[in-house]
Amino acid sequence: MVKRNAIFYNFSNNYLFDELQKIKENFIKKYPHKQLIDLSIGDTSQPLSKNIINAIQNSSIKQGKLETYSGYGPVSGQLSLRQKIVKYFYSKTNIHPDDIFISDGAKPAFDRLHRFFGSNISVSLPDPAYPAYKDICIANGVSSITLLPCSEKYDFFPDIEAIPRTDIIHLCSPNNPTGTVVTRKYLQQLVNTALKNQSIIIFDAVYSAFITSSTFPRSIFEIPGAEKCAIEVNSLSKSAGFSGLRLGWIVISDKLCYDNQETIKSNWKRLNSSIFNGASSIIQNAAEAALTNEKYDLNETIKVYKNNALMLKKTLLEQGITTYGGEQSPYLWIKLKGLTSKEAFNYFLNEFNILTSPGSGFGPSGEGYLRLSGLASQASILSSIERINRLTA
Amino acid sequence: MVKRNAIFYNFSNNYLFDELQKIKENFIKKYPHKQLIDLSIGDTSQPLSKNIINAIQNSSIKQGKLETYSGYGPVSGQLSLRQKIVKYFYSKTNIHPDDIFISDGAKPAFDRLHRFFGSNISVSLPDPAYPAYKDICIANGVSSITLLPCSEKYDFFPDIEAIPRTDIIHLCSPNNPTGTVVTRKYLQQLVNTALKNQSIIIFDAVYSAFITSSTFPRSIFEIPGAEKCAIEVNSLSKSAGFSGLRLGWIVISDKLCYDNQETIKSNWKRLNSSIFNGASSIIQNAAEAALTNEKYDLNETIKVYKNNALMLKKTLLEQGITTYGGEQSPYLWIKLKGLTSKEAFNYFLNEFNILTSPGSGFGPSGEGYLRLSGLASQASILSSIERINRLTA
Repeated sequence: MVKRNAIFYNFSNNYLFDELQKIKENFIKKYPHKQLIDLSIGDTSQPLSKNIINAIQNSSIKQGKLETYSGYGPVSGQLSLRQKIVKYFYSKTNIHPDDIFISDGAKPAFDRLHRFFGSNISVSLPDPAYPAYKDICIANGVSSITLLPCSEKYDFFPDIEAIPRTDIIHLCSPNNPTGTVVTRKYLQQLVNTALKNQSIIIFDAVYSAFITSSTFPRSIFEIPGAEKCAIEVNSLSKSAGFSGLRLGWIVISDKLCYDNQETIKSNWKRLNSSIFNGASSIIQNAAEAALTNEKYDLNETIKVYKNNALMLKKTLLEQGITTYGGEQSPYLWIKLKGLTSKEAFNYFLNEFNILTSPGSGFGPSGEGYLRLSGLASQASILSSIERINRLTA
Repeated sequence: MVKRNAIFYNFSNNYLFDELQKIKENFIKKYPHKQLIDLSIGDTSQPLSKNIINAIQNSSIKQGKLETYSGYGPVSGQLSLRQKIVKYFYSKTNIHPDDIFISDGAKPAFDRLHRFFGSNISVSLPDPAYPAYKDICIANGVSSITLLPCSEKYDFFPDIEAIPRTDIIHLCSPNNPTGTVVTRKYLQQLVNTALKNQSIIIFDAVYSAFITSSTFPRSIFEIPGAEKCAIEVNSLSKSAGFSGLRLGWIVISDKLCYDNQETIKSNWKRLNSSIFNGASSIIQNAAEAALTNEKYDLNETIKVYKNNALMLKKTLLEQGITTYGGEQSPYLWIKLKGLTSKEAFNYFLNEFNILTSPGSGFGPSGEGYLRLSGLASQASILSSIERINRLTA
């Protein structure tokens, strides 16, 4: 019989968010009258704007006419969308539309990227981090994975002095799960290290639109030298409510080369054509709309989530709970003194009927923490605040 | 610097359909007054039905309201869609909705499947075949690829007696590129061989909706024993005009096991959660609509394409050109006596200004043939017929 792929022996039994989903379903079944509030998974709650809906409707009408029907689009995505992405996200950089590759969201983009680099590479991952990174490395047969412990000392980012040389370094800012954000100085140091070590940084910027302070870089390409050592992944899932619609992108500059000076981009294009057929045309048109009227479509939505996170943060701090993040990010990273992640998770679940993400699910250095998401509806956040306050009143 | 992934040394320089796209663009630039007709890539031309458009519009309106907005859906796809797929495509089988995994089209589904099986397997591919199969095997580091030459003798399917034992066997019926279709008897023999050899058949059924004669199986799961040795991939791209919208699926039965009796499906679910985030919710709703009113949405569209293929076939046969397929499939597979694929391709391009796919692009046994697609618009097909008739009149 066909052999079980060796990767499966390295996977944990369950993907974190699948496990949480099961706990949620069991809780609801057991306590149907308790109104469980889900602040665990980073799923969005704000509706799409009229502008985006109109774009979807107009796009579908075009698909209904012989003269305007279109089938397969360019695998890299519509040029007009790539132009809008550059205008909105990369105006402070040298990135141009040909550097943008549209994807059906960030997770599959990370996967295709690792697919691109293959198994014969070494990878550094922050610990804690988005669990899909590690799974994707394992799924791609990468055996050399180094976890970089992140603590409060460096805002839950890796200690740059302690980073060993690896082929790939993952970094996410604003960070998932800790909600903290890297400074320009930190990111410049990381870029310098990568250039010196000839490493490639895979920079996860899916929460970049939550940065409203110009102190912090929204893209790694704002940092001099990054074009030669970084790939960025971004998405409209959190910023424009596209988590169900599926739209993300990858940024690869012409300046990113193998040592023989061949561009990584040309190889990437070749692979992408063979394993992907582009993101849905209708969703690409919706994304264009989100970025045409971005002031309303992105900023108003993000304002709700940021306000959610800030309100929740205030409450937790008032209760004496150590709380990080939640300012340039929708996530809060909290520590309940003396409790393990599991104990704290159960405490929130049983005392407040609030589902959180246990920090230990993001890596061993996440032990003792919980992640709370401000991406839930304002009503859920207000109820959460009421419950937390009621109990300790 | 990071090493170039070894897979790239095994890739051909360009993906076939990218090459054809370049030839097309150059031709149009050089001869802007000649109206090039594209019968090369299997892209669709028929508009979406009102029913599908309404579903997209209603779905987008729901996404615009706080009460009905939804983010991430189940990675395997909406249950209601999986139920409709079973009803329409698998009513003659034991397949149930839990066996269906929704994907963003067939190509990425094949890729994730090979991802699942990994590099340490042996694969048999028909020759000629859809070029993505080989690319995807290469992209997954599969080094043991056996090409199974297909000739007129067995309707361009592999000679079953000559198939060596490999872990995976790919088969596509109705076939791309040859437009021929397997009989029940043939498929039963293949299933028996796979069961005996403990191989897994990856059955590409993306053209199954073009089968209107009950003589031929529309799904491999209509064949006794297939549940224990087959995985099927299908899509709405060609049958309902979803090539730009992106919607496909994979079928894996509970009866498909590793030798330790662990189901392949449980492992598949684990991987899928880590590397994929589901197909777009709005497109899934559109797919449900296509399968609710399937008589109109699928059958009427397919009728146009089948009629295209038949008209074209008649013309070619009248001109004395050897022509296969085009009856239970949108594709024609033709041979111009004494010409190589490249010569025949240039002949069609220069004499008729018709872009075709050279058979040699689908594998060495495709040499001497051309693939013509009936998925173009009826107007393009009628013009093609006129041009072919005019020249030889």
